[in-house]
Amino acid sequence: MNHRQHFPALTNKAYFNYGGQGPLSKQALEAIVTSYKQIELRGPFSAEANAWMTKEAEETRCMIGGELGVPASSITLTEDVTVGCNIALWGIDWRPGDHLLLTDCEHQGVIAAVRELQRRYDIEVSTCPLKATLNEGSPLDVIAQYLRSNTRLVVISHILWNTGQVLPLEEIIQLCRSHSTWGQPVRILVDAAQSVGVLPLNLAQLEPDFYAFTGHKWWCGPAGLGGLYVHPAILESVRPTFIGWRSVKVNSQGEPVEFKSDGRRFEIASSSTTLYAGLRTAIALHHEWGTTEKRYQRIRELSKILWEKLNNLAGVSCLKKSPPDAGLVSFQLHETQIESGRTHDDLVNYLEERNIMVRTLLNPDCVRACVHYFTLESEIDQLIEAILDFQAK
Amino acid sequence: MNHRQHFPALTNKAYFNYGGQGPLSKQALEAIVTSYKQIELRGPFSAEANAWMTKEAEETRCMIGGELGVPASSITLTEDVTVGCNIALWGIDWRPGDHLLLTDCEHQGVIAAVRELQRRYDIEVSTCPLKATLNEGSPLDVIAQYLRSNTRLVVISHILWNTGQVLPLEEIIQLCRSHSTWGQPVRILVDAAQSVGVLPLNLAQLEPDFYAFTGHKWWCGPAGLGGLYVHPAILESVRPTFIGWRSVKVNSQGEPVEFKSDGRRFEIASSSTTLYAGLRTAIALHHEWGTTEKRYQRIRELSKILWEKLNNLAGVSCLKKSPPDAGLVSFQLHETQIESGRTHDDLVNYLEERNIMVRTLLNPDCVRACVHYFTLESEIDQLIEAILDFQAK
Repeated sequence: MNHRQHFPALTNKAYFNYGGQGPLSKQALEAIVTSYKQIELRGPFSAEANAWMTKEAEETRCMIGGELGVPASSITLTEDVTVGCNIALWGIDWRPGDHLLLTDCEHQGVIAAVRELQRRYDIEVSTCPLKATLNEGSPLDVIAQYLRSNTRLVVISHILWNTGQVLPLEEIIQLCRSHSTWGQPVRILVDAAQSVGVLPLNLAQLEPDFYAFTGHKWWCGPAGLGGLYVHPAILESVRPTFIGWRSVKVNSQGEPVEFKSDGRRFEIASSSTTLYAGLRTAIALHHEWGTTEKRYQRIRELSKILWEKLNNLAGVSCLKKSPPDAGLVSFQLHETQIESGRTHDDLVNYLEERNIMVRTLLNPDCVRACVHYFTLESEIDQLIEAILDFQAK
Repeated sequence: MNHRQHFPALTNKAYFNYGGQGPLSKQALEAIVTSYKQIELRGPFSAEANAWMTKEAEETRCMIGGELGVPASSITLTEDVTVGCNIALWGIDWRPGDHLLLTDCEHQGVIAAVRELQRRYDIEVSTCPLKATLNEGSPLDVIAQYLRSNTRLVVISHILWNTGQVLPLEEIIQLCRSHSTWGQPVRILVDAAQSVGVLPLNLAQLEPDFYAFTGHKWWCGPAGLGGLYVHPAILESVRPTFIGWRSVKVNSQGEPVEFKSDGRRFEIASSSTTLYAGLRTAIALHHEWGTTEKRYQRIRELSKILWEKLNNLAGVSCLKKSPPDAGLVSFQLHETQIESGRTHDDLVNYLEERNIMVRTLLNPDCVRACVHYFTLESEIDQLIEAILDFQAK
């Protein structure tokens, strides 16, 4: 069976928004429905149903840990990548005057959370310019210039959601570690929204402090389930902020006595446990197609094809001057096009009317098209032809 | 059609755990599945899919607002009741020495969150003894005794999850308001886990500052969706803590410029929007049966029957000496029973083996059975007979 036929979303459109949300397979939806039925059959609230839900969560942490090359105990299940970032941001024992380093390519939600941290804890925040390193210069050098003696946390994306640049995370982590020797440790929080499900990952080797991700983008899991990896060496020093019954151990009187010692300390309370089987099924389906390495290779092959064809269009330029290292391909219409009344918004709307899904970004002002390993070359051709039609309008 | 036949969970058991989780109707599950299909048909990520999800969320806030007697703009959609409590707890601009008043009947997750607040912000926390007011004394007098000149927040449940006591919330709120005139306002955070879906509510009249609830207990919605009401007069003074793209307004550069001015300011990022239709369908199904007033009346009729039959059993006493005011009925086996080797855990396990679902509580050490408006008297008889069998073992 053609792999794409598992995904109902792909039957009626050319789809290029994997960086926004991945399609859900029939199997994943069936697994969710089966979970609902299991819960109703056993409970919904009973010793048996509760044991079943606990096991579902544990199997999911295990499978995610396996994908990331780390133990299940270092994984926290969250609602989304942003909750994972918030757990890390609010979990550090900030002191007035501490320094937090952001990049200029972080997502608006993370920026807003950092600003609120700054207001509440009187910390210093600065933003290093990585956007400009897409084609020249070194992100590593830029970050090195921005680290200070009071830097406590660096917040960075593994793959930049706007330009699609893959950052040299291993070197950046090494830089933070070596900088740490000057004084207090510099922690690193990685927004992995665009890297999990794309890059082959071994976090045990990479050793970020925090790695926050979601299941609903490149993994094609259901929306509403993501996770956070916290390095085992620091896990118990990170304080939970939003706290509930899942975070704590209780005594014989039912009183909370301490936080759990593994990733569950950051989980809160009731959530949609039916999504767990959905995400596991989604991940298993990718493995049926091929290894992470093989899938990543195919993503790069396809993004190179898309990048080349876009660059061959008159009036269109890709932001990146060399083939992309991942599935995100951002491009712009030339000024002359925009001056003649064809904006990026117009293009995206024009394409969506023709069932071709891409999106605009505001900074840089561009259009982003994503390819997954199962994107068709004919889909890419459809996109290219529709852009030509738009330009000829 | 018999109303109960809508709920697959009720076909194979006698169910008394509504305070833990309500059963999901076939219609609600179908609405969830239909939502999944809608999202895949339209996107999953596209302008059309995003507009659809935004509308789903708005319709859900509207319907919840209608149930609670308040505008949709005062409602925040959350993952569960505990997240709602955390939003309120962390949203107050605590100063060292401020006082927070808890009751001795709050849920372990809320207690743990308050302790973490205490540690981080150096606030004073005290706990007032309401458990003992189940049969004598006045919760209002107890709270009045515990309010201090530096009290900033009272954290209280509308219906106590352990003893089932319904607190006189209107009077408690009035007390806090009048106490406020001595200095800074005393805010009140209500844990409404056990009251929403049970009590007829008009929050616009009651005017709590915060009212946190879940859809998956008495409303019988899907797990993973709850909400928080914040009084419109204070909403914009409450700072968001966990923050994401749903919390903020952005400028033309995509930068966050301010928090949204309505309840969405506390919403974070991607969640399972398919649950929205599930909860709305669940609420609509209750209305098909009867008004909130009629449902609440039936809950009280049934809990009185259960309470009487339990009290008529030798060796069993209900905690409450008069008929319950809601659907929670907590009872204990007499010491002589427990001494003869029949513990509450044994009883609950014995019952679950016979497909009768109740639960133990640790403080007070008891068993809790819940009735909803659609509980059958024959289910109650089944429970009573099984307890007799257990005692005769």
